[in-house]
Amino acid sequence: MKKTIFSRGFQVPGFATAGISCGIKTNKEKDLALIISQEPSIAAGVFTSNKVVSPTVIWCRKILKSSKAFRAILVNSGNANACTGPRGMSDCESLASELSHELSISSKEVFIASTGIIGVPLPKEKIIKALPNIVSKLSPTGWGNSAKAIMTTDLSTKLTSSSFYIGKDKVTLGGIAKGSGMIHPNMATMLAFIATDANIDKKTLNYALKEANNQTFNRITVDGDTSTNDMAIILANGQAKNKKFKIGSLAYQKFTEKLTELCLYLAKKIVMDGEGATKFVTIQVQGAKTKNNAHQIAQTVATSSLVKTALFGEDPNWGRIIAAVGNAGVSIHLETIQILLNGSVLFKNGIPTNAASQSTLRKKMKNKNISICIKLNRGIFSDQVYTCDLSYDYVRINAEYTT
Amino acid sequence: MKKTIFSRGFQVPGFATAGISCGIKTNKEKDLALIISQEPSIAAGVFTSNKVVSPTVIWCRKILKSSKAFRAILVNSGNANACTGPRGMSDCESLASELSHELSISSKEVFIASTGIIGVPLPKEKIIKALPNIVSKLSPTGWGNSAKAIMTTDLSTKLTSSSFYIGKDKVTLGGIAKGSGMIHPNMATMLAFIATDANIDKKTLNYALKEANNQTFNRITVDGDTSTNDMAIILANGQAKNKKFKIGSLAYQKFTEKLTELCLYLAKKIVMDGEGATKFVTIQVQGAKTKNNAHQIAQTVATSSLVKTALFGEDPNWGRIIAAVGNAGVSIHLETIQILLNGSVLFKNGIPTNAASQSTLRKKMKNKNISICIKLNRGIFSDQVYTCDLSYDYVRINAEYTT
Repeated sequence: MKKTIFSRGFQVPGFATAGISCGIKTNKEKDLALIISQEPSIAAGVFTSNKVVSPTVIWCRKILKSSKAFRAILVNSGNANACTGPRGMSDCESLASELSHELSISSKEVFIASTGIIGVPLPKEKIIKALPNIVSKLSPTGWGNSAKAIMTTDLSTKLTSSSFYIGKDKVTLGGIAKGSGMIHPNMATMLAFIATDANIDKKTLNYALKEANNQTFNRITVDGDTSTNDMAIILANGQAKNKKFKIGSLAYQKFTEKLTELCLYLAKKIVMDGEGATKFVTIQVQGAKTKNNAHQIAQTVATSSLVKTALFGEDPNWGRIIAAVGNAGVSIHLETIQILLNGSVLFKNGIPTNAASQSTLRKKMKNKNISICIKLNRGIFSDQVYTCDLSYDYVRINAEYTT
Repeated sequence: MKKTIFSRGFQVPGFATAGISCGIKTNKEKDLALIISQEPSIAAGVFTSNKVVSPTVIWCRKILKSSKAFRAILVNSGNANACTGPRGMSDCESLASELSHELSISSKEVFIASTGIIGVPLPKEKIIKALPNIVSKLSPTGWGNSAKAIMTTDLSTKLTSSSFYIGKDKVTLGGIAKGSGMIHPNMATMLAFIATDANIDKKTLNYALKEANNQTFNRITVDGDTSTNDMAIILANGQAKNKKFKIGSLAYQKFTEKLTELCLYLAKKIVMDGEGATKFVTIQVQGAKTKNNAHQIAQTVATSSLVKTALFGEDPNWGRIIAAVGNAGVSIHLETIQILLNGSVLFKNGIPTNAASQSTLRKKMKNKNISICIKLNRGIFSDQVYTCDLSYDYVRINAEYTT
């Protein structure tokens, strides 16, 4: 990670945040987070592709369209407020309304997000009762607490920030995320909230977020499932007072690069915290005829249970990688394919190399970071996907979730 | 299962089979199977959709096109002869050639199949050396032995037969199969070989096999992976001397129904033997606007790791079923969906029913057979997929496969 990334104790000018326990989780752990912008911010968001969505997703999509300025993001963990019938939306709306009274802002300036178990009515009274408390705890350095409060099965908090210059003006980005299971492209069970003081218009911010998201949160998979509640939202309050920039400009490129870097850090943290994960795995496909071909193959290898269990077992069973490559629905030529694992060529000219059967390979697989590179040698396009292995603990965690 | 299904000690008139150990498996278990037809048979086959295929698949596809009559199927387990370079095809061809000398037939009348580890050269000499022995052991009642000899990680043999009448002529079908992991539609790591004495032309046989396959082997999934070697082949020797029948006739319908029944029995046995499986799970989708919509949803629920681990944990986490339904890429209306588990309505009118939270549900989930029915109430189409749960043992078996 580059030096510009700091993961603790940061501030984003003009933003304050807090995380507390309001009693949704039975173990007194933090379960309510609030991020506020002192001045009206513009915002952009990306959301789950699941056809079943929580009212929170509907609400956030709606206000993103209808409101021009935003002031707060309220997030609870422990309950997803999904599949809860008509009361789901009214619960969501009353949270926005109660918080807006508390902060003397409009309810349509309040994003609401929920994560946790599906189908259980939201204990909204607990949240409403806790609002004065969480507002009193707001602090510019509260990101560690809010990152903690949005966790479900996560084992580690996920937060980071970076600062850089646009012209002579220092711009800061800070973000938190959660997610460890049901992780898959197009916003699988994950939430990310990013704040920046960049001075940027809505269209440009939206474009930058989509671009960053596409290379980061949309390139991670833990178990191939997507959820009902996922979103990444960015608020920008303009306090950096940098000159506004347009899509495609050098300043835009810099901002998007930094935003991508921040999202990638959070996305990788989500994968590293994948339920039961013991390995962080990068699947890179090079030399494809199209970007889509490269993506299809990387995605198919990254979601193969057989590849993932072999990685867990540190079993140099490269044949499963080849079988997964063939399973992607993309036309390939076995003779031109090369497969590398952490730099060693395992497969070439249609057959395994000596490296594939040697004990050095088994040794390489003991590495916590595994990089699988598939060179198709058919074109110029490449893509990569990040994933983890499939372990006993994934099964344990998910077999016992509601119990 | 209907009375016409017998799974032990059957014969198919005009066919003999054997299964022996030739030394590919190190534990002296059976690893070589041979099925022969005393008279020339016609044949039909369906093959893996994986783009990386074993030379055995190329060979079988080729002779199916070029030859009119067939006499034998030779199958080894313990080695897939896949990703073995140019020698893979020459090894496959020399097995066909050696067996054809042994039996005084043409090599193009010999199907070759292999299953086991990928990327290790086939120990062809062991197989060739064992040919006189396996030929000497051929017996009309040898199906139990050949079913055993094609197993890899399978825990149980899979074989069955049925007899029925076409007009006044008794027709018999008998088949064996293997498969327990890497199971997915379009011929995932599975082999099935079926013999019949039906008098049938090639086109009709081909049509009947495709139809049966589509409702059976193409409707099972264990882990979403497909392999390089899979096939189902049927031989028909005409000894029943029934009047030949055409596609669409009553006799055709009867034959296809019986063939489907036999394939379904074998397909279900494969799922029940799914690596680490503790549950047999039927996912049925009803009331879809198109057959494809129904299939997409059934398939997405059946391959959801989160649904499968919840089933393993006997955890009544129906929210994961709804999330998987939403993840199928099919437009749905949450308010009209009903979800039933072993007959109990868990979800209706957009919210869980009382049954979803009661201890009776947890009790129902202890059943070894789980049936999940998703009623979309949007149209008249339905489809079903068979799968199993995802357990610790799946991970254990697959983390340790080559070690």
